[in-house]
Amino acid sequence: MSKMFASDNNSGVHPRIMDALIRANQGHALSYGDDEYTNRAKEIFKGIFGEDTEVFFVYNGTGANVLGISALVNSYNSVICPSTAHITVDECGAPENFCGVKLEVTDHSGGKIGIEHIKGKLHMLGFQHHSQPRAVSITQCTELGEVYTVEETRRICDFAHEHGLLVHMDGARLANAAASLGAGLCEMTRDAGVDVLSFGGTKNGMMFGEAVVFFNTSLCSDFKYVRKQGMQLHSKMRYIAAQFEELLKDDLWLENARNANEMARLLAQKASKIDGVNVDHEVQTNAVFAVLPPKVIEELQKKYFFFIWDEEKSEVRWVTSFDTTREDVESFVRELEAAVSTCNKTLE
Amino acid sequence: MSKMFASDNNSGVHPRIMDALIRANQGHALSYGDDEYTNRAKEIFKGIFGEDTEVFFVYNGTGANVLGISALVNSYNSVICPSTAHITVDECGAPENFCGVKLEVTDHSGGKIGIEHIKGKLHMLGFQHHSQPRAVSITQCTELGEVYTVEETRRICDFAHEHGLLVHMDGARLANAAASLGAGLCEMTRDAGVDVLSFGGTKNGMMFGEAVVFFNTSLCSDFKYVRKQGMQLHSKMRYIAAQFEELLKDDLWLENARNANEMARLLAQKASKIDGVNVDHEVQTNAVFAVLPPKVIEELQKKYFFFIWDEEKSEVRWVTSFDTTREDVESFVRELEAAVSTCNKTLE
Amino acid sequence: MSKMFASDNNSGVHPRIMDALIRANQGHALSYGDDEYTNRAKEIFKGIFGEDTEVFFVYNGTGANVLGISALVNSYNSVICPSTAHITVDECGAPENFCGVKLEVTDHSGGKIGIEHIKGKLHMLGFQHHSQPRAVSITQCTELGEVYTVEETRRICDFAHEHGLLVHMDGARLANAAASLGAGLCEMTRDAGVDVLSFGGTKNGMMFGEAVVFFNTSLCSDFKYVRKQGMQLHSKMRYIAAQFEELLKDDLWLENARNANEMARLLAQKASKIDGVNVDHEVQTNAVFAVLPPKVIEELQKKYFFFIWDEEKSEVRWVTSFDTTREDVESFVRELEAAVSTCNKTLE
Amino acid sequence: MSKMFASDNNSGVHPRIMDALIRANQGHALSYGDDEYTNRAKEIFKGIFGEDTEVFFVYNGTGANVLGISALVNSYNSVICPSTAHITVDECGAPENFCGVKLEVTDHSGGKIGIEHIKGKLHMLGFQHHSQPRAVSITQCTELGEVYTVEETRRICDFAHEHGLLVHMDGARLANAAASLGAGLCEMTRDAGVDVLSFGGTKNGMMFGEAVVFFNTSLCSDFKYVRKQGMQLHSKMRYIAAQFEELLKDDLWLENARNANEMARLLAQKASKIDGVNVDHEVQTNAVFAVLPPKVIEELQKKYFFFIWDEEKSEVRWVTSFDTTREDVESFVRELEAAVSTCNKTLE
Repeated sequence: MSKMFASDNNSGVHPRIMDALIRANQGHALSYGDDEYTNRAKEIFKGIFGEDTEVFFVYNGTGANVLGISALVNSYNSVICPSTAHITVDECGAPENFCGVKLEVTDHSGGKIGIEHIKGKLHMLGFQHHSQPRAVSITQCTELGEVYTVEETRRICDFAHEHGLLVHMDGARLANAAASLGAGLCEMTRDAGVDVLSFGGTKNGMMFGEAVVFFNTSLCSDFKYVRKQGMQLHSKMRYIAAQFEELLKDDLWLENARNANEMARLLAQKASKIDGVNVDHEVQTNAVFAVLPPKVIEELQKKYFFFIWDEEKSEVRWVTSFDTTREDVESFVRELEAAVSTCNKTLE
Repeated sequence: MSKMFASDNNSGVHPRIMDALIRANQGHALSYGDDEYTNRAKEIFKGIFGEDTEVFFVYNGTGANVLGISALVNSYNSVICPSTAHITVDECGAPENFCGVKLEVTDHSGGKIGIEHIKGKLHMLGFQHHSQPRAVSITQCTELGEVYTVEETRRICDFAHEHGLLVHMDGARLANAAASLGAGLCEMTRDAGVDVLSFGGTKNGMMFGEAVVFFNTSLCSDFKYVRKQGMQLHSKMRYIAAQFEELLKDDLWLENARNANEMARLLAQKASKIDGVNVDHEVQTNAVFAVLPPKVIEELQKKYFFFIWDEEKSEVRWVTSFDTTREDVESFVRELEAAVSTCNKTLE
Repeated sequence: MSKMFASDNNSGVHPRIMDALIRANQGHALSYGDDEYTNRAKEIFKGIFGEDTEVFFVYNGTGANVLGISALVNSYNSVICPSTAHITVDECGAPENFCGVKLEVTDHSGGKIGIEHIKGKLHMLGFQHHSQPRAVSITQCTELGEVYTVEETRRICDFAHEHGLLVHMDGARLANAAASLGAGLCEMTRDAGVDVLSFGGTKNGMMFGEAVVFFNTSLCSDFKYVRKQGMQLHSKMRYIAAQFEELLKDDLWLENARNANEMARLLAQKASKIDGVNVDHEVQTNAVFAVLPPKVIEELQKKYFFFIWDEEKSEVRWVTSFDTTREDVESFVRELEAAVSTCNKTLE
Repeated sequence: MSKMFASDNNSGVHPRIMDALIRANQGHALSYGDDEYTNRAKEIFKGIFGEDTEVFFVYNGTGANVLGISALVNSYNSVICPSTAHITVDECGAPENFCGVKLEVTDHSGGKIGIEHIKGKLHMLGFQHHSQPRAVSITQCTELGEVYTVEETRRICDFAHEHGLLVHMDGARLANAAASLGAGLCEMTRDAGVDVLSFGGTKNGMMFGEAVVFFNTSLCSDFKYVRKQGMQLHSKMRYIAAQFEELLKDDLWLENARNANEMARLLAQKASKIDGVNVDHEVQTNAVFAVLPPKVIEELQKKYFFFIWDEEKSEVRWVTSFDTTREDVESFVRELEAAVSTCNKTLE
């Protein structure tokens, strides 16, 4: 059974990144980040985001999000986020457990929030009985594949800062958002006002490793201890750093994301032509959400593994990846057509 | 400057393990452990430790220790460990922070504790004001390179169980201990009574990844949530699993550890013949603790990076690794001799 | 300025309870609950709720709720509660911080939830990425003054137990609910299926002190340590116990609650006859929610302190207490009428 | 059986404080500290410790210590304290659980530490793997009844501040220390350099209530949320405030402490004259530690309840209180003499 369209976490490691790992595997290097690979990778981040950026490599997205947020808040604070946010749906309570905070969950549109959602949570300020809002967390692109424009991000950040809030961006798929926007990484994050960014690597062709990127460096003076206490400090750090170095070189990150986005658009385009298959969001990045008959889902799942997103709506999620090819899409669509046809026959 | 004798964390990835990573990099695989690599690796662990063993892969040693311990205790408990334990010295308070527990630190001999040390902490039992002892954590081999005999481990475990305590073993360098003892992995852990084991991979030639191994499986029925909330669940799990599979195949783990141990003995033997250099512990595994004049340390550190373990005693730590060669040792010893000689000349 | 209708926390200590404190102030008594007062008070609780009940006295409602819930859940669990719940609105994140859990907040009607609300949160069961539902917390009477019937409570508990959930009841104002229902304390809690109860004392005429009452005693075998670590163990325990003894004797608790409820009904009845004043919930216990013109609120607040519950709706909350008298209500209503009249004049 | 010499927690409430509680029980008062009693009590604290002092009332000593310390540290910090400290022996891990910190426990003399003990814990500074020392906690008077001179406190505070550490003083029995020293409350705390003080009320004649007193007010800007989240905010705050007001008026606190201290000295003096009874510390405050034969202890415990402090040494602890009288001491000594005599007879 193919797992090609199930998740970008199912994809492997990009060949160039695997080569970088092999090249990094020479001799001994100082551990815990005191090595040349880490220095070089940090410099690349500074080249992209500005000299006064601080970068900390961690293991995974949950680690990046939770530790990044912990630098923004105290335990008596709350973090405002949409109800779709990975931090509230998919991290098994790690933010609450590690930071001691409350997540204040809002409505959303396609996983995106706006000023009005944040405003609705700014009550009981100064009231000692109530967790005090201190941060906003947005996901770029969202868990539903939608993208904040640079202007939308800026409006959120401006509003947040005016109201004493800091902004965390979960960028597990930041590359896909950048490819979709055609915007620069710095332009869509730091320049738009983001304070701390989870910069994703794993879903975009790395083996492991994410980066917590601080634009407001007053927030991270003690972050090295937070990372260690948060169990996210890797000993053989060069192997995370070397991957990031390669990913950021010659825009490999962008090439990977562009391919994934393009294949998702292609898949959506082809799938939506099939009778009974409705793609129900505009495809902005690398996820396709489609509604199709339960019988067809069942039939297709004999060949392909993928997630049923919403059982009631009979909605599924298909995800493309840096390594998805045109042939992969075409094979998938053929199987989809076959599944539809099989089901139609049964009905006759 | 060479980092060859600074730490086994400075070593790279064993070529066979790198090859295994390359082989695992084929197509898409289910994420979060639902893949065949993970299944196979777990089976190998069960082959070694018994069918009713449960294995959970995590990122690093701190994660393995803290999450493993969290399965043994409640926050109002204490964990008894020697004052040298990695969990109390080198994890930046992660056990206290994640588990909410108190570490009850005891004296030790070479990093080893015995029943008498545990006994000394078994007071105020049932007294609601005092953190109740619930677990013992021992490190095999210890942070000072010493090894518990199977019988010593058994005595600790028996005593612990008789007194309502569970036993965690920090096996970040379990392979080195096994090589030193000539004992089987199961014999020295499960059969001796250990309840949960942190099984180290990174220091023994892996790129990243450790395993939490439960012999008392009633302790881990919900551990998958603990791992996720503890930020230690890897998405592309096959890349940890494939490493463990290779490490455990054909006793690569043992070969690696034997080489490291042998090179440490060789180094100790050669170094101790040099005037003014005293190796002050019997070398049982892959660490050599030596006392030498501060001037000599300074001189040698122009060529080799390594840690001064105890400034007052003028004691240093040299660590060998799976990839340390006889030539590496000889070069190092030559530089050590040269440093001694340089210093002697200066004195004349 | 009078604080008579602001909150039942503003009331004093009932004279009989003050007398009990004075009587308890004789000689020395063992501390931390090993005294006769505590034994007697616990026996009274057992008389009410059954012999196999375990009772732990704590300082306040937040302590009772948070520690009680902590006995039901692990940190990777979630607790389902209405969005009005004291535990999520008014405890500054204490449940998240102390228990490490996620609160799953649902819609409600008058602060009450039903099976359908709980059902809506029972998703992603067994999915390691998502906090697993483990408890339901309901408030009796609710923060909006409404009361669950015994049957409604039973339905929730039955449904919860069938789905592997435990039930916590926040009974900060349980007495008011009991008075309203005309039901027995045991009938409306234990007999209906509640697992752990926060039994309120302070709002019903005590100086300080609440009780955590376990009906499922397997949940509290180690609770004495939880209470101590949770900073809720009082040294001079007799002074909490003596208050509870008096409160529960000759149904003083019920007399107090009945008076508060009756005065609230009287106030609602009289206030709702005034032009421009609308009481917008049926008054079931001791809180009156009324909508009245902002100008009138402003005018009335020159004489009486009370909370504006919902600024947009121009809704206020008035609370009665064990010591509210008919004269207090009449004086208040006179001032309310005067305020309305003043505002009407200004408008003319 | 008399509990008169078991613990100052066994004593009742001083009659003047009970009267103050009765006087405070008039009408309604704003809750959570917005009342006149609280304002007045805070003013008295400011009168004693300086205008720029911030005072927060909490329930108990554990609450005062843990919350006070939480204002000094981050979770990746350590707190240096003697191995006798209440925070490490008698709070069931509450500091670790609530603050996430490590307690670094040192040797001591009579429960007192000096610069040399602190110095011994100032290692691995800036090393990301190790909990970073950030606070020192001393107990005045100590758990063994000894008192720091003003100069000793100042030396600790000066050294701490020079090394980037803050100082917490656990003053559960500060009054007894002040009475012993003949020093002013401000002189021995703030003026000596203490940053935050747990000011004890309960052991010195109050029913419940302690105060967290900040001299470094930059540390407590958000402390009201910490207190609430820490479950230590009392609703009917006037009843703590009124007690403190009375305790601090006309030096009632000092009178109470002096009596307790004097009775302890009297007891020590009389007891030490009895054959086979050895008082083994100089009695500086209200605790007497005596070594006497196990048989005598057993005999005496038929009449008096008290704690065996050290079973091996056959050492007991007797504690006097604000209400201990000369007659109480004489009766106790008579029973002690009788117990000795009985035991001697048995031996003959």
